[in-house]
Amino acid sequence: MSERPADDAGERPEGRPADARPASGPESGRRRPGRRPGAADTRGQILAAARETFSEKGFDKATIRGIARQAGVDPALVHHYFASKEGMFVAAMELPVNPDEVIPTIMNGPRAEIGERLTRFVLTMTSEAEARQPVLALVRTAMTNDQVVSMVREFLTHALVNRVAAELGIPPIRMEAAFAQLFGVVLMRYVVKLEPLASAGIEELVELLAPTVQRYLDGP
Amino acid sequence: MSERPADDAGERPEGRPADARPASGPESGRRRPGRRPGAADTRGQILAAARETFSEKGFDKATIRGIARQAGVDPALVHHYFASKEGMFVAAMELPVNPDEVIPTIMNGPRAEIGERLTRFVLTMTSEAEARQPVLALVRTAMTNDQVVSMVREFLTHALVNRVAAELGIPPIRMEAAFAQLFGVVLMRYVVKLEPLASAGIEELVELLAPTVQRYLDGP
Repeated sequence: MSERPADDAGERPEGRPADARPASGPESGRRRPGRRPGAADTRGQILAAARETFSEKGFDKATIRGIARQAGVDPALVHHYFASKEGMFVAAMELPVNPDEVIPTIMNGPRAEIGERLTRFVLTMTSEAEARQPVLALVRTAMTNDQVVSMVREFLTHALVNRVAAELGIPPIRMEAAFAQLFGVVLMRYVVKLEPLASAGIEELVELLAPTVQRYLDGP
Repeated sequence: MSERPADDAGERPEGRPADARPASGPESGRRRPGRRPGAADTRGQILAAARETFSEKGFDKATIRGIARQAGVDPALVHHYFASKEGMFVAAMELPVNPDEVIPTIMNGPRAEIGERLTRFVLTMTSEAEARQPVLALVRTAMTNDQVVSMVREFLTHALVNRVAAELGIPPIRMEAAFAQLFGVVLMRYVVKLEPLASAGIEELVELLAPTVQRYLDGP
């Protein structure tokens, strides 16, 4: 993640536009070997349509079919670029991580250390300015825009809170408390820049915070 | 706190403007029995000067003397209206609570229950829309304004974090972790409106969160 160039933020989970399979959308008649700009434009069109649709309808009501219609492309092409609605949201908002990919990694390992893995992951990810910047930009917008905050709430609930809570068999509110702890620390560290929190090392913070996260995720 | 009208947010820690003792400032020659508007204007002038000074210089470098000069009044009058620089900041930002008053109340009682008292206080205070609104307004401004965020950081450090950490004899970072937990929950509850957190009762949340806060405040 640390070496990912800034303009590459939306490339996952699929590969480059040039890998696109033949599609029945408007782009299909124009594809020639090496003709990447057309494909990149199509991908950009889809992302622009996704941003518009997500912020108008929220995450829950947006559909891949609706976004394809808005972008004027075939839904199969949207499915090709973005494996899931979560993946498309992540790409459209230029988020540094896709919960579809990250959650299994964090879940994989001893359950008694899940708090530590999650805490270390969040602190490491946000320690990269490139990864942090789009997250904070979205938070800033959400703070003053009801439509954006609804979209963020639905995404968090669907892609993160309910999924992790279900996998661990805990009440969702416990996952929310853990998320609030980590989110609060990231805000204090990188927006408010409260010292000594802002200058503390990742391992010092893992030691301080992971037992809290673990307690919530252990369940009542 | 719950019955305080919205436009009364800055009246504490002192009484009404009409209680003002004779002062040597520009207002002194104009005071007559029952002539409250003049006093209210002076208080408003001081608050306007305080807002300007705090956001230009931050909390640490602002002085009561400098704010008095900016407002064109005698420093004794500023001291009369606002017992301390913290009190003036609280009034200028229309914050619902003055740490000068609240911290002793929370500290007073069994140390093993301080996490519970602090958690219940924060949740009860923020459950009142009138009390929450100016806090969230300040957070929203701080999110996009470097000068405001510096001012907030200095106020938090001086009036809250360092004071509580010193009284409890714990490293300040532990108080910051506790603050981040409660702040994160308030944001998730009232800005993101994440469910079930947003609809949970105060006592359910105290039970969930107080052990976390207690662990941080117990020290390493």
